[in-house]
Amino acid sequence: METPFSQYMERVRGSRPLVHHITNYVTVNDCANICICAGGSPVMTDGEDVAEMVSISSSSVLNIGTLNSRTVASMEVAAETAESKAVPFLLDPVGAGATGYRTEVSERLMSMGPAVIKGNAGEIGVLAGTGGDVKGVDSRGATDAAASTEALARRTGAIVVASGEVDYISDGKVTLRLSNGTGMLENVSGTGCMLSSVVGCYIGACGADIMAVAAAVTVFNVAAELAVGNCRGPGTFKPALMDALHSLDGDTLDARARWERA
Amino acid sequence: METPFSQYMERVRGSRPLVHHITNYVTVNDCANICICAGGSPVMTDGEDVAEMVSISSSSVLNIGTLNSRTVASMEVAAETAESKAVPFLLDPVGAGATGYRTEVSERLMSMGPAVIKGNAGEIGVLAGTGGDVKGVDSRGATDAAASTEALARRTGAIVVASGEVDYISDGKVTLRLSNGTGMLENVSGTGCMLSSVVGCYIGACGADIMAVAAAVTVFNVAAELAVGNCRGPGTFKPALMDALHSLDGDTLDARARWERA
Amino acid sequence: METPFSQYMERVRGSRPLVHHITNYVTVNDCANICICAGGSPVMTDGEDVAEMVSISSSSVLNIGTLNSRTVASMEVAAETAESKAVPFLLDPVGAGATGYRTEVSERLMSMGPAVIKGNAGEIGVLAGTGGDVKGVDSRGATDAAASTEALARRTGAIVVASGEVDYISDGKVTLRLSNGTGMLENVSGTGCMLSSVVGCYIGACGADIMAVAAAVTVFNVAAELAVGNCRGPGTFKPALMDALHSLDGDTLDARARWERA
Repeated sequence: METPFSQYMERVRGSRPLVHHITNYVTVNDCANICICAGGSPVMTDGEDVAEMVSISSSSVLNIGTLNSRTVASMEVAAETAESKAVPFLLDPVGAGATGYRTEVSERLMSMGPAVIKGNAGEIGVLAGTGGDVKGVDSRGATDAAASTEALARRTGAIVVASGEVDYISDGKVTLRLSNGTGMLENVSGTGCMLSSVVGCYIGACGADIMAVAAAVTVFNVAAELAVGNCRGPGTFKPALMDALHSLDGDTLDARARWERA
Repeated sequence: METPFSQYMERVRGSRPLVHHITNYVTVNDCANICICAGGSPVMTDGEDVAEMVSISSSSVLNIGTLNSRTVASMEVAAETAESKAVPFLLDPVGAGATGYRTEVSERLMSMGPAVIKGNAGEIGVLAGTGGDVKGVDSRGATDAAASTEALARRTGAIVVASGEVDYISDGKVTLRLSNGTGMLENVSGTGCMLSSVVGCYIGACGADIMAVAAAVTVFNVAAELAVGNCRGPGTFKPALMDALHSLDGDTLDARARWERA
Repeated sequence: METPFSQYMERVRGSRPLVHHITNYVTVNDCANICICAGGSPVMTDGEDVAEMVSISSSSVLNIGTLNSRTVASMEVAAETAESKAVPFLLDPVGAGATGYRTEVSERLMSMGPAVIKGNAGEIGVLAGTGGDVKGVDSRGATDAAASTEALARRTGAIVVASGEVDYISDGKVTLRLSNGTGMLENVSGTGCMLSSVVGCYIGACGADIMAVAAAVTVFNVAAELAVGNCRGPGTFKPALMDALHSLDGDTLDARARWERA
């Protein structure tokens, strides 16, 4: 009998994990707000106090959406500190495959022991070496998302999430196929980044556990499904998504969750 | 017989241009989202992979809203790459005239071959040398916006847009006067930046064509007119603007468009 | 007989102060928009033209939310310029007490003559040396917020604001206790930063006057109270807060204001 996702959600809300972020300046505000709505306490710092802040955090989210040499150096400090303090960190390799620089930085951070690697199917395909098509920061598809996810998890030891219309999660042994969500998520910038922040809350509160990661993805996607009914388009969808995540109740979550072993 | 604006809109939506941005950190999220709602795919990068990203983009938007020496250097790389790869780029000289540094950077980027220069009437007046009053990042008016726009277009070879209650667009030969829009746009930070992103989508999909630029400005302003009826103030106007742009239909656009030769 | 808060609000709206900001990249867009809704004109610059921009501004807001060595250097230039040009500046010491770097930078900027220091109760307690508990950027409480506020005001000569469920404001001689607001403010990232921007508008228009600061805090909190009735959660609360502040009328403000001498 699996632990229902609602119990992970309760654990997050009950412990209010401090989630450190070094993320891009495009979607950072949405990451902070979704983190609060998921039950976490976000803190963003990429300056001289990164190591000190990561040390007191429950988890760290490293997102390369608008990377530059200064922020990459800060991410390396964050990753090293996380490793040495046993703080789980998540890598979101935004745009890996679109430029050589992004692929290279992703590989470097990937070698530093992330608990979770979360990308779109194209990015995960590129990093797994199984083939992925990335243009700008959008995935244009991958050869076989389930296989890429499992291959990258096996190679890195991380829990790997490939998001898309269907989401795959693998720890190298078990691979899950999750099918909640809505196409509206594609119409808003940064929904992938927001999902990373939610996963950050869950690994901060529950540890690097494949079911905690699956709960995070499902919580986000179910909130998105509910938000569609309370909006008139992409502009009003985003605040509706925040509202839905904040007020999501456990019974609704468990009743709507759709996942299976892949 | 002019091509109706709706046909430009269809071309943008059908081709989903990749629009590179180096823009300010104040309004960057709104730029990304309005770009999606206009039919484009936004990508923001100002780090080591600027040249590589611009090379694969359909257009580039350079906005100096929160410039510093690092980002200005990146904008120069973007402009050079755009020039050499025949990628049209737009310059938004935010705050030119408010400080000497902004005026100087604007002039430097202006000399690098922008396809479009889009500012408020004060900024365009300053850059045209015909007189403009800029305080902070707001225009306090200009001597004669139509004349400034035409003069700057003639001097630079760019298509120039001076936004305001009435918008002027000139390629140095033809000057257009557009009168859609709403005063509510003044109550939201970054509506000028968002307009630049929408123009970026249109020149990315349709090339540097004065009618494509006029279509972009009209699409944005008509969406703003429609959004006013779906909001309770500046806060709810912004998401309503996104919604309206995303769902705008061609017949409504063509019926509401108000423009003439100046 | 005290001047009613509505008269301060009229003065801000009538003069449209230019409010310079160096703030964090997480909540900067909300700061810009709340500043407009409060009646000010925001300008954000932290690059080579800081001194020139501060010189023409009515006030400056320095917020260390995502500090790094480059932006701290810019804040020092802003503070020096503000001092020499008699432009009042506000310091928001975000996360002071959470890391040594933040505490140290806060103390340095605090010694440069801020007109106002605005933090949460934990941050003010840390800087006053009376004890405060700060985790990430959230206050976990302070020994005695009223006493901390007064002590820090006396030591620095600034007007000090400690925000929380109840807000305290002191100029070292008089200490006020303000009790408007709503718990919903805790569910949105950056409401403390937004409050700082609103205070920036008021000191820009009215000077560094304890009653002007109290008016700013009350205007913001009353708008928040009104917004709660127009939202479905934290996501829709933020735009509703902008709307409510923009349309707040003086009679409502004065009727709802709740404050007393502490």
